[in-house]
Amino acid sequence: MNRLSPDGGGDDGNDGSESLASPLLLPQRSLINSTSQVALVGANVCPIESLDYEIAENDVFKQDWRSRGKKQMFQYLFMKWSLCFLVGLIVSLIGFFNNLAVENIAGLKFVVTSNMMLAGRFKMAFFVFSASNLVLTLFATLITAFIAPAAAGSGIPEVKAYLNGVDAPGILSLRTLFVKVVGSISAVSASLVVGKAGPMVHTGACVASLLGQGGSKKYGLTWKWLRFFKNDRDRRDLVTCGSAAGIAAAFRAPVGGVLFALEEMASWWRSALLWRSFFATAVVAIVLRALIDVCLSGKCGLFGKGGLIMFDVYSASITYHLTDVPSVLLLGVMGGILGSFYNFLLEKVLRMYNYINEKGTVYKILLACLISIFTSCLLFGVPWLGSCQPCPPDALEACPTIGRSGNYKKFQCSSGHYNDLASLIFNTNDDAIRNLFSRNTDSEFHASSVLVFFLICCVLSILSYGIVAPVGLFVPVIVTGASYGRFVGMLFGGRPHSSLNHGLYAVLGAASFLGGSMRMTVSLCVILLELTNNLLLLPLIMLVLLISKTVADAFNGNIYDLIMKAKGLPYLVAHTEPYMRQLTVADVLSGPLWTFHGVEKVGTIVHVLRITKHNGFPVVDECSQDDSRVLYGLILRAHLVELLKRKDGFMSTSAESRGGGVEFSAADFAKRGSGTRDTIDDLEISAEEMEMYVDLHPFTNASPYTVVETMSLAKALVLFRQLGLRHLLVIPKITNRSPVVGILTRHDFMPEHVLGLHPLLFRSRWKRLRLQVPRTFSIF
Amino acid sequence: MNRLSPDGGGDDGNDGSESLASPLLLPQRSLINSTSQVALVGANVCPIESLDYEIAENDVFKQDWRSRGKKQMFQYLFMKWSLCFLVGLIVSLIGFFNNLAVENIAGLKFVVTSNMMLAGRFKMAFFVFSASNLVLTLFATLITAFIAPAAAGSGIPEVKAYLNGVDAPGILSLRTLFVKVVGSISAVSASLVVGKAGPMVHTGACVASLLGQGGSKKYGLTWKWLRFFKNDRDRRDLVTCGSAAGIAAAFRAPVGGVLFALEEMASWWRSALLWRSFFATAVVAIVLRALIDVCLSGKCGLFGKGGLIMFDVYSASITYHLTDVPSVLLLGVMGGILGSFYNFLLEKVLRMYNYINEKGTVYKILLACLISIFTSCLLFGVPWLGSCQPCPPDALEACPTIGRSGNYKKFQCSSGHYNDLASLIFNTNDDAIRNLFSRNTDSEFHASSVLVFFLICCVLSILSYGIVAPVGLFVPVIVTGASYGRFVGMLFGGRPHSSLNHGLYAVLGAASFLGGSMRMTVSLCVILLELTNNLLLLPLIMLVLLISKTVADAFNGNIYDLIMKAKGLPYLVAHTEPYMRQLTVADVLSGPLWTFHGVEKVGTIVHVLRITKHNGFPVVDECSQDDSRVLYGLILRAHLVELLKRKDGFMSTSAESRGGGVEFSAADFAKRGSGTRDTIDDLEISAEEMEMYVDLHPFTNASPYTVVETMSLAKALVLFRQLGLRHLLVIPKITNRSPVVGILTRHDFMPEHVLGLHPLLFRSRWKRLRLQVPRTFSIF
Repeated sequence: MNRLSPDGGGDDGNDGSESLASPLLLPQRSLINSTSQVALVGANVCPIESLDYEIAENDVFKQDWRSRGKKQMFQYLFMKWSLCFLVGLIVSLIGFFNNLAVENIAGLKFVVTSNMMLAGRFKMAFFVFSASNLVLTLFATLITAFIAPAAAGSGIPEVKAYLNGVDAPGILSLRTLFVKVVGSISAVSASLVVGKAGPMVHTGACVASLLGQGGSKKYGLTWKWLRFFKNDRDRRDLVTCGSAAGIAAAFRAPVGGVLFALEEMASWWRSALLWRSFFATAVVAIVLRALIDVCLSGKCGLFGKGGLIMFDVYSASITYHLTDVPSVLLLGVMGGILGSFYNFLLEKVLRMYNYINEKGTVYKILLACLISIFTSCLLFGVPWLGSCQPCPPDALEACPTIGRSGNYKKFQCSSGHYNDLASLIFNTNDDAIRNLFSRNTDSEFHASSVLVFFLICCVLSILSYGIVAPVGLFVPVIVTGASYGRFVGMLFGGRPHSSLNHGLYAVLGAASFLGGSMRMTVSLCVILLELTNNLLLLPLIMLVLLISKTVADAFNGNIYDLIMKAKGLPYLVAHTEPYMRQLTVADVLSGPLWTFHGVEKVGTIVHVLRITKHNGFPVVDECSQDDSRVLYGLILRAHLVELLKRKDGFMSTSAESRGGGVEFSAADFAKRGSGTRDTIDDLEISAEEMEMYVDLHPFTNASPYTVVETMSLAKALVLFRQLGLRHLLVIPKITNRSPVVGILTRHDFMPEHVLGLHPLLFRSRWKRLRLQVPRTFSIF
Repeated sequence: MNRLSPDGGGDDGNDGSESLASPLLLPQRSLINSTSQVALVGANVCPIESLDYEIAENDVFKQDWRSRGKKQMFQYLFMKWSLCFLVGLIVSLIGFFNNLAVENIAGLKFVVTSNMMLAGRFKMAFFVFSASNLVLTLFATLITAFIAPAAAGSGIPEVKAYLNGVDAPGILSLRTLFVKVVGSISAVSASLVVGKAGPMVHTGACVASLLGQGGSKKYGLTWKWLRFFKNDRDRRDLVTCGSAAGIAAAFRAPVGGVLFALEEMASWWRSALLWRSFFATAVVAIVLRALIDVCLSGKCGLFGKGGLIMFDVYSASITYHLTDVPSVLLLGVMGGILGSFYNFLLEKVLRMYNYINEKGTVYKILLACLISIFTSCLLFGVPWLGSCQPCPPDALEACPTIGRSGNYKKFQCSSGHYNDLASLIFNTNDDAIRNLFSRNTDSEFHASSVLVFFLICCVLSILSYGIVAPVGLFVPVIVTGASYGRFVGMLFGGRPHSSLNHGLYAVLGAASFLGGSMRMTVSLCVILLELTNNLLLLPLIMLVLLISKTVADAFNGNIYDLIMKAKGLPYLVAHTEPYMRQLTVADVLSGPLWTFHGVEKVGTIVHVLRITKHNGFPVVDECSQDDSRVLYGLILRAHLVELLKRKDGFMSTSAESRGGGVEFSAADFAKRGSGTRDTIDDLEISAEEMEMYVDLHPFTNASPYTVVETMSLAKALVLFRQLGLRHLLVIPKITNRSPVVGILTRHDFMPEHVLGLHPLLFRSRWKRLRLQVPRTFSIF
């Protein structure tokens, strides 16, 4: 064991500090990296760790690789595609079941309430409505808080962080999956302004991860063919496919799903993955299509024109001309401003909720109940402000709608009249979106009703996202944006300004709000096209998305990045910050470095593993000839623990022949699933064994990626991020010093750490160009 | 100067060959890398070189970077987006002009010929038809052969190789652009079965590259703001946007264009690039939409329902059921087999043509003329075999069509009748596709006519692609696939087997053929959707694409990869071949390694640059204290040449202070445009200067990426490819040997080189799983 002092001099005493290119800021290396090793995962604070996409090329792995023949390659290939197929199949079934359940539960609730109102029993109706909402919300919150706190929220930030290499316990477990599905159904059915797309993405990721894990070792449910998937790399690919399938199932948008996974979720992407996620979403599309065929014959209860069916409202051709451009531009600019403001508010509310949630489970539940009651009051109360309108004589459906969850809501009006505000508010989100998107309804809604609806959606969606239940953000943003767009259309859209109808404005408004909040481009464009089923809209949607994203980017980041940051997830961005070019790798190295000898004493290993939390240790050999020290490679904590647990490799002296008679297979070192892992504290090692030696060479990754200490931080980040590393060894410029001077991990690249070490950079001109919201604006 | 012997021992004599982990196959390192440094670019064999996406972090660059303030960042940002906008604008204008010209020239030709046939002057009609085709083909061939041979072919393989890091002179020059546009128009107008999508991609790439280059230094037309784009990295991003814009303009498929660039063209991709290429294609979509609005009023001559307008034939809703699946599956499987066979034949024909083309320009021109005459004969002759059919009473357009390039061709028939074979064959490709895709025309064509058309398309498209003119492959594959699909639909599609109409079968056939030949998934899916404008087709198209690609992948690679391989372009694939895990980096190192000292004699540099063709040289410093040698970094040939040309840095002795008074700016080392570059042979250096010294430190990239010699080749390839490197330094395992043992370049990773060094691996079981076409099949 060697504890190298931070300046790399160590015990070789040959520092050569007047060397050609010694780093400038040596003294600061002794600081400990203080970035947080915990993050808010779902609702609770959990320890996090990094995933490792590098192949640990140790002797055991190499031996396993050499033994693989055609048969193993076929097994791998077969399983890869079978798992993709299963992911698509299961996710589409869950998605369908999810929609079916929501449509039936929420539909039943609205039918019962409407019938009571028809009978004039308004108080009773309100009681039933709010009580059922409260029960459903409470159920969702209780199962989330007590069974799987990791299932709270949309899950997209957590999955995105997972795909970036941040793992947290329980994030993709069976429990989380169960709570996510059931909780999402009850939260959406509870008439909260929350979405189901985010939970579907998380569901898809859970399904994929669980399938790849291949049963449970605890219950003996493992299958040999799945052994190739017991590593972070293959699991990452599966989870990417799963999240694509999630969006595909939520919106019935298979191509949009692939692009969403590509643009928003995945940090690493390659062509082969495109092809596999396309396969998974194709399965989703085909299965959903078949299931809907079954439902069209009316066997699915109230499941009718609900979520899964596209908002197929533009099958006729639409025309638009140059004169429409100014109002569309205005829509885009304002959508961008509103979207970024929405992000700003949402983040503040989330931080405030976090204080409340930290106080204990009771507070979490109380908060959720409060939101539910507030929502019920608004949904039931505000329509009373709306005026009754006479039914149009040429209405395509029964007006007012009686006995089902229709669009021309009667509410308090007399027969032959409908309440336009209730048609929007007292309805499921999906139906509200459909109403807003519909053509030939320019006279159906008052501008004031749409404005009120917009404000209610804004407030409720921002307040509802933070509760401890599986709730998404996609549908709320769409519905808010659609009402905003329709309102703008009503103000500016009439002739002679524009020939576009109000429904089209609603679609464009949804695009602008999505662009301003989520900041995706291609995937949003395709999802919206797949939702509305008209490609002629394409140029307009592209224009609006471009403008709103550009405007919003000037103010803040996209909503998922903001949430990830608020949650403390150490996300590694792809671009390098300008100041990173000014620093060398050595400028950010922190903490003492622990290294092992090639043949190391068991007691030393145990001691080091106990006193540090590092997950990788350089293995250094000493040449007997000239006392020089050579970097042999990098050994992982998990492998060391396995080695100590098995005890097969223990030798009485350090001089024994290495690896003699020790039989380890690659499977022993395979990455565990989501279950508990052995830690060093679980091991019992006798005092006698502590004095023995173990040969680390066969288990050491003999070719870790390395960088020279004088490399700029930006270049090292590119290497680290592009290759998906967990540890990056830093070697000295002058080769006759210690063979390794430090290890870089994800946390060393975090701006908080770097700017903490070098506070002068904080206000330097190398920061990104971004308009700052004035400080006085921070009202919370 | 040091010439290190291949085993890395060099002159330090401290080889340590009994070290812990010395490479296994040392002796083989002395072999020279014999992979070809030339490739077939367009029609001619040219030298190729690699692009360098690594930032050369030398002192000059660092100084320049530090001097950049907010203003420079704004300039860069502004230029980035302005250039994207300009690329979109110019490419859409070219695309529109291209279509306008083709529609008018080909339309005029068909009108004149038809009028002659109406007057009974059949021989004269044939003469005019074939003569105009011949003249147009000859024109296209002549300008290609004499002005810009690099413009021959579709250009997609060349651009794809460029984006992978392979540069060739003239591939993206102004000349190539001109010939590509004009030549493509005349080749397509000449009724050859060739496409314009490929040339549009190349055009887009040329436009992007030329814009990024920012005028010409020769004519003093440079702009300071463009200096940030004078490197391979920013130019690569622009070219990616350009190729996306090309597809967007060719098919009016903006989202498809982005996805095509992402899936097929780009080797490096990141989210920011998605966003920029989306911007470029959005500009294309909006500009095209506006231009078509102008043309709808009839001001564009014969430009009517031609190429740029979508094949908008499915605006009504379509239904399909589970019973349709078997015939669709069959279509997909057969499409995959036919597609891969198509690839196989095309590659053989290309190789054969290559022999002919190599014999001289006259042979090239003769070949093109022959193809043109053959095409004219077939197009004019075969319709005579078709029978005349009575016009349907409910035809939507005039039947037979008189006086314009319509669909119900009269040809030799009497009035009131039309020739269905002529409607397909004696027409532009775009119109033929529209006919095949159309609904409600199940009785318009005989099965035999469609079969004949399919065979003719197959033969002609395979024969036409190899001629020396700018010709694409996309449209021929679509038209071939559509006729194949329609034929299958006629055989199996009728009730009770299937409820799909023949036009829908044609769309699915085109999908299956595209999937079988081009092997893209998401992008083809979106392009087809954007072409046919109906999203309800999505599940079926996805199914067909999945099946045909899977089937075809079992036989051979995608068509562009086959062509790239036939052309000898050293494309670096993303996946690692299994045998690469068995080799270490040291196993493939080849040739002698040349290094420079930190302060080097001018004469030595000149000598080394003259006798080698390497483009990067390690710079090694010698510590005066203990005689050890330290790797300082890597210097590029281009920078050395610039240094020798300027002569500012020359010093009379080696002991002078380094960099004193030498004023170089980063702009001096910026990458030149497509013009001629200085080579070492152009420099005149006096004998006196030869004896002087130059300090290389300020110009050396002090932190090149390095790997240890024992790293597996697969891992090194991942690093090399992911970071887009040109040179990868190999450092020794044992640090007290020479500080660098070799340099890996693109060619060292080529399978030919690796398998040439280690022929035993060739037949090993670690090769990819792929069905082999029996050897007897290779008829050529």
